[in-house]
Amino acid sequence: MNLTSQIYDRLSNLVVNTGWGRKDAAPPRPETLIEAARKLPGLRSETRVMAQAAELLAGYAILDDAGKLSFFESLRDGFDPDPDALAEAARQYLESADPARLEALSRLAEPPRQELLRRLNTAAGGTAALVGMRDDLLRLTGRDPAFARVDADFRHLLRSWFNRGFLQLVRIDWRSPALLLEKLIKYEAVHEIRDFRDLQRRVLPADRRCYAYMHPAMPDEPLIFVEIALINGLPDSVQGLIDEAREVLPPDQADTAVFYSISNCQNGLAGISFGNLLIKNVVAELLRELPNLSGFVTLSPIPGLRKWLEERAGAEPAIAKLLKEPDPVALSAQTARYLLKARDAKDRPRDPVARFHLGNGAEAHRVIPDADISERGRKQSLGMMVNYLYDLKRIEARHDGFTERGVIAAPRKMQDMARKAEPKQTDEET
Amino acid sequence: MNLTSQIYDRLSNLVVNTGWGRKDAAPPRPETLIEAARKLPGLRSETRVMAQAAELLAGYAILDDAGKLSFFESLRDGFDPDPDALAEAARQYLESADPARLEALSRLAEPPRQELLRRLNTAAGGTAALVGMRDDLLRLTGRDPAFARVDADFRHLLRSWFNRGFLQLVRIDWRSPALLLEKLIKYEAVHEIRDFRDLQRRVLPADRRCYAYMHPAMPDEPLIFVEIALINGLPDSVQGLIDEAREVLPPDQADTAVFYSISNCQNGLAGISFGNLLIKNVVAELLRELPNLSGFVTLSPIPGLRKWLEERAGAEPAIAKLLKEPDPVALSAQTARYLLKARDAKDRPRDPVARFHLGNGAEAHRVIPDADISERGRKQSLGMMVNYLYDLKRIEARHDGFTERGVIAAPRKMQDMARKAEPKQTDEET
Amino acid sequence: MNLTSQIYDRLSNLVVNTGWGRKDAAPPRPETLIEAARKLPGLRSETRVMAQAAELLAGYAILDDAGKLSFFESLRDGFDPDPDALAEAARQYLESADPARLEALSRLAEPPRQELLRRLNTAAGGTAALVGMRDDLLRLTGRDPAFARVDADFRHLLRSWFNRGFLQLVRIDWRSPALLLEKLIKYEAVHEIRDFRDLQRRVLPADRRCYAYMHPAMPDEPLIFVEIALINGLPDSVQGLIDEAREVLPPDQADTAVFYSISNCQNGLAGISFGNLLIKNVVAELLRELPNLSGFVTLSPIPGLRKWLEERAGAEPAIAKLLKEPDPVALSAQTARYLLKARDAKDRPRDPVARFHLGNGAEAHRVIPDADISERGRKQSLGMMVNYLYDLKRIEARHDGFTERGVIAAPRKMQDMARKAEPKQTDEET
Amino acid sequence: MNLTSQIYDRLSNLVVNTGWGRKDAAPPRPETLIEAARKLPGLRSETRVMAQAAELLAGYAILDDAGKLSFFESLRDGFDPDPDALAEAARQYLESADPARLEALSRLAEPPRQELLRRLNTAAGGTAALVGMRDDLLRLTGRDPAFARVDADFRHLLRSWFNRGFLQLVRIDWRSPALLLEKLIKYEAVHEIRDFRDLQRRVLPADRRCYAYMHPAMPDEPLIFVEIALINGLPDSVQGLIDEAREVLPPDQADTAVFYSISNCQNGLAGISFGNLLIKNVVAELLRELPNLSGFVTLSPIPGLRKWLEERAGAEPAIAKLLKEPDPVALSAQTARYLLKARDAKDRPRDPVARFHLGNGAEAHRVIPDADISERGRKQSLGMMVNYLYDLKRIEARHDGFTERGVIAAPRKMQDMARKAEPKQTDEET
Repeated sequence: MNLTSQIYDRLSNLVVNTGWGRKDAAPPRPETLIEAARKLPGLRSETRVMAQAAELLAGYAILDDAGKLSFFESLRDGFDPDPDALAEAARQYLESADPARLEALSRLAEPPRQELLRRLNTAAGGTAALVGMRDDLLRLTGRDPAFARVDADFRHLLRSWFNRGFLQLVRIDWRSPALLLEKLIKYEAVHEIRDFRDLQRRVLPADRRCYAYMHPAMPDEPLIFVEIALINGLPDSVQGLIDEAREVLPPDQADTAVFYSISNCQNGLAGISFGNLLIKNVVAELLRELPNLSGFVTLSPIPGLRKWLEERAGAEPAIAKLLKEPDPVALSAQTARYLLKARDAKDRPRDPVARFHLGNGAEAHRVIPDADISERGRKQSLGMMVNYLYDLKRIEARHDGFTERGVIAAPRKMQDMARKAEPKQTDEET
Repeated sequence: MNLTSQIYDRLSNLVVNTGWGRKDAAPPRPETLIEAARKLPGLRSETRVMAQAAELLAGYAILDDAGKLSFFESLRDGFDPDPDALAEAARQYLESADPARLEALSRLAEPPRQELLRRLNTAAGGTAALVGMRDDLLRLTGRDPAFARVDADFRHLLRSWFNRGFLQLVRIDWRSPALLLEKLIKYEAVHEIRDFRDLQRRVLPADRRCYAYMHPAMPDEPLIFVEIALINGLPDSVQGLIDEAREVLPPDQADTAVFYSISNCQNGLAGISFGNLLIKNVVAELLRELPNLSGFVTLSPIPGLRKWLEERAGAEPAIAKLLKEPDPVALSAQTARYLLKARDAKDRPRDPVARFHLGNGAEAHRVIPDADISERGRKQSLGMMVNYLYDLKRIEARHDGFTERGVIAAPRKMQDMARKAEPKQTDEET
Repeated sequence: MNLTSQIYDRLSNLVVNTGWGRKDAAPPRPETLIEAARKLPGLRSETRVMAQAAELLAGYAILDDAGKLSFFESLRDGFDPDPDALAEAARQYLESADPARLEALSRLAEPPRQELLRRLNTAAGGTAALVGMRDDLLRLTGRDPAFARVDADFRHLLRSWFNRGFLQLVRIDWRSPALLLEKLIKYEAVHEIRDFRDLQRRVLPADRRCYAYMHPAMPDEPLIFVEIALINGLPDSVQGLIDEAREVLPPDQADTAVFYSISNCQNGLAGISFGNLLIKNVVAELLRELPNLSGFVTLSPIPGLRKWLEERAGAEPAIAKLLKEPDPVALSAQTARYLLKARDAKDRPRDPVARFHLGNGAEAHRVIPDADISERGRKQSLGMMVNYLYDLKRIEARHDGFTERGVIAAPRKMQDMARKAEPKQTDEET
Repeated sequence: MNLTSQIYDRLSNLVVNTGWGRKDAAPPRPETLIEAARKLPGLRSETRVMAQAAELLAGYAILDDAGKLSFFESLRDGFDPDPDALAEAARQYLESADPARLEALSRLAEPPRQELLRRLNTAAGGTAALVGMRDDLLRLTGRDPAFARVDADFRHLLRSWFNRGFLQLVRIDWRSPALLLEKLIKYEAVHEIRDFRDLQRRVLPADRRCYAYMHPAMPDEPLIFVEIALINGLPDSVQGLIDEAREVLPPDQADTAVFYSISNCQNGLAGISFGNLLIKNVVAELLRELPNLSGFVTLSPIPGLRKWLEERAGAEPAIAKLLKEPDPVALSAQTARYLLKARDAKDRPRDPVARFHLGNGAEAHRVIPDADISERGRKQSLGMMVNYLYDLKRIEARHDGFTERGVIAAPRKMQDMARKAEPKQTDEET
């Protein structure tokens, strides 16, 4: 348990920074870098592999975007399986599906990119560098399907390395290293943290909690974090929740934990989701510390509400009117309808935050007018927010219902509101 | 106050131990286990994946050897790629080697065993459990080639998870946790450690050092460790080195670090070598602490010496005589010859310890009579030992010379001894 | 990553070990040491004070017992207040009790020994060295009243430095440093710990706990520790409690914590009691972790029982018979009587362990025959042991009753047993 | 070494916050508090002592300044030695100076205030509370000699508790807890730190260091800290030193460590100096890490320069002119004169910062014009600053020269400048 404080990793001592890691080094030409990448899988001395991997990552780091894109193009075109060898192996396998031929086929079918990435990961700081490289990849190649197989190799390995079994749950508070707190300010996605003073209000008071997942190979980088307020009853507004003047509640007097902000920190880990597990893990941790807690809810934004209303406004005069003169009751009804009835192109619930929490096994519990009166809150959802409720006894059943049969859990009252908010069938039919 | 003490991993809180993890649970039938294994890749809820993975590993843990072997047979036979789908993909790819077909072929060619192992790794303690499972696999299926592809999948993933970038170098001393020290006693392979008192003599005195590699997912298990003595000059015998009555040398007065014992701890990580890197890493660490050190040598056993002498005794009367009446000078000469000239079936140096150090870039520096007078020492090498020398400036060149051209580095004197110890060519020819 | 690992105390770097700290240094003559001691309070450079303090402690450490005794004699005779100056200050104060004269009198009345000890404490490791010095003092001067004032100065300062506010409660388990565990083996006073294996059985199983008080200036030395067994019901025997073959109880199923061994570690801190507070502190800690616990009892030896019985045997034939043919019922009754009625010369309960727990606010709850069948147990108390019970709601009231009015808390049944075990008054009177 | 992370101090669990520690408790009347204080030394149960001490400190904490002053008056008047008993002891001692009477006199002459303070120190957080109480005492009673004996008792005990042997040297960097960094911003006395961003520039870059002394009983409060810049050559100005745009120097290329800011953090520890030792301790630590360092200098303010110049301006027209038209050369000369020649009422060097460093064994090495062009720098010293040089080989000799014979170490050039800056004797005499 206390071993970690003795741990020092001096692998980097062995790495000779011949070139690109030096201060003032000039960026390499992408071809030079790719040539080095091509040699990496063939090296036999482990020390040399590590040194070369570090050198290569250092060279990559100082490329400009054009250089990086060029590097990715080479990664895409030059690291696929050898087509002739693979074709021959496929032919052999078709001839006779014996274990040896199967193995040869499997081996040759794995893109050499994967071994390259594995070897880059041996450098000190390699894991963080590869996460950053995938961030660049997604940013520079966007949704270009030509790069899909490059990304697939990254995702495949990162999923293995960021295995749930390797994650560490960390409580973050005012005793946490400044280096780490600084990252929270940088990564907060939902309710901006302006500076350390502002952050202090999220982590220091006795009725606040903050937890993050960390990975041992990236000790200074949170992967995801969640901010929590301990209160009595259900929360009515974000501004009330983070009001500086509020009285601090002794945590053992709270009955409800509000997850009011969840932020993913690493774009390079997109598609490798931690949020579901983090919420359940934190619920378990909170219950251990504060057995009096009985409610676990979010206070969540509804990012797509206004856009949906605007789209519907043409066909539904009531909604057009609502956009001009927002009325809390009618707006709540339409919000319930949006959350429970609106579908996207893939026939999933249209709201992405709703999809996340419903997919985790939560219930769409309550919609709240004027709950986020910030400019952003007004802009994206006319101030509406929603509580998703995590009912520990039903999480798994609701997860199943949602993922297998598309059932959206919601109290009867919400369901009624949503149904009544829909234009009358007869109207539509006529 | 510090982050580390705040880290707690309560993933296991979410795991429902429905059955096999319970105290007094009866071992499952292997078929039941395999059925569960077959379902694991299909689960969609991450919490459930983790719970099932834990359950499965718990069930496996209480199988007897027959049950485990049966489980491995199912792993071997039931988790290969789907031959029809793969054949179809191979056919498609042969038709047209476009990226989509390549990707499909790659995907289908990866044995589903790998995804199973990845999912098992999500359980709390999963990594250690999988290392243990591979230990069982190697022990129960030995060198049976039928299981080679099962082992290949284990090795492939473990190599990725035990990536050099994830290893942590830890100094072990008398302040280390007893839990960890206990493992050293258990795993010491070269010079038996009898108990904690005996261990204390290896880690407490100022002129001793001990380092290990740890992995964050197995916090209580060393992967490999090395024991070091700081002395002046070259060591003459193991018994002198670990003599309890010797005077302790102030470490800043030592000029030489002797690596007198290196032990791999995890059979389940066989073939994933850490020793090469550990030695270089420790040399860097020692130099940082003790810049006066100029020599880095081993005091190594010669496990195959007696056996080789006995094999040669038939053809060479001088050796037959030597075995009856050991003479230090003649024995040293034959030892040099054994190390530098004797080859195994694959035409590699015959001695496994020699192969390890020469492959790391060391020189076979000196042979020493009566250096290990323990029973084992007499039995395997008539008391002979050898110093391998790590010359920092030549490690890489020697590594290359050995791995690429089979050159065994040794001082002129050793080479001469070895050559003269060979029977005269003319004798052999006549 | 954490603060603690950054803490290093290099005060000692500044200390020039001119002489006695060197290896192979010859012990100083006590006069030389005392001369250095006399100069210490006059030094003005703090660095020099620290260096001289370290030097002096190093010199003291290599004295033999005769030298130490001679050193203590000088401490006794040469470091009292200056009698003339003090007499003059006393005279002045008697003339006029104004603040300035009071202050002068206070200042001159403090023995210069105290400032000497304070300055010795500035050396690195000074606190531990002074605790060791007092250990020597008590050992070598025993109860000689001539040294009482030397000891009073030690005790006065150590009590201030080992203030309750500076103590740290530490849980000790199998992850604790071997260096610390080794001390437990050395210091265990009640039930001998033979070696690390034996110790492991006291700290590793899930139904065992061990806590110690540590002091930040003596990081490697426990001050006092307590060993605890978690069980159901009241414990019947030590041998049952520490039986290796017993089934381990899941800690959350235990209802009782048994304090079966408490050991003071530092003779040099004699008279500065930590036990009372440790027990209460550990009770609070256990309750926090295991809210199901409802009973807190000891399983305590009765060191003076046999001796008392033997003394009474002359006057009471029943006791003489009991010593020859122990009968559990009669023995229990006499034990109750011994604990509740027997007084020492100062009219306190005669048994020292009883005095400790009763003074802490415990109740003498139950006597148990054949509870310690070790040789020592038979010898000192014919195998009898006693449970003292800590009833959280009554600790303070019982403490008051005992310390203020001498009331010994015991259940009605115990009291009846004790009363009936007394010889009939009429018999004694006749 | 890694024990600390297991340490948790739950002494406070035992403390019943009956009253003043409760939220919204009304401040006690000072008399009530003093009454509690009077009872504290008589309590026999340690738990109760701790609880009462905590309660008393909680009550004190919510007093207003008038209440605190009233509390200090009672401390002053009601906790002196008992005059009658002391007089009797003095009489007895004058009659016969035997050890028993000496001891009685010593005991009675110690003001009961000391035992009160010792018992207050047993509360959780007691040490910090007492440091705060002395801060109040100095603030509210200023230099009123009537309170001198109260302060003497505080200082006497705090000096013992803040013994050099108990201090911990801590490196502070960007991984330090925010809680601790926040204190640096608060306590920086020399060059204001505006916020965390500003602080980051002092502790994060590779050529910056920051060290503090901590005390284990006040884990969140630095006692004193020093900020260091690693540079080449001597520093010319503070603004250059902390210039954000400067290029960061690799630390192993630096030859000089500049101590550019030293801040005491606890007013309540006034008169218990740590600075001298901190500087030497940090020098040792820096040398261990960076053996290339050869110079250790300060860049120090000269707080009293302008005031002294203004005082001299009346008598010396050259100085009056200098104040109007500052000329770097003449100003440097007068600064040298001020540092080396100007004396205060006690005939010590007049400048307090000079006294500190010269007393530590430094040399007044160089005066620098325009070295602090901040408003404060111009105001107090016309922009002049000074380098004090710590020459490791001469520190002790210079300390002795200064403290014993008043010798101010300075290079010949400085001395000449200072002498020539003095008005000609003949001028003065005529």
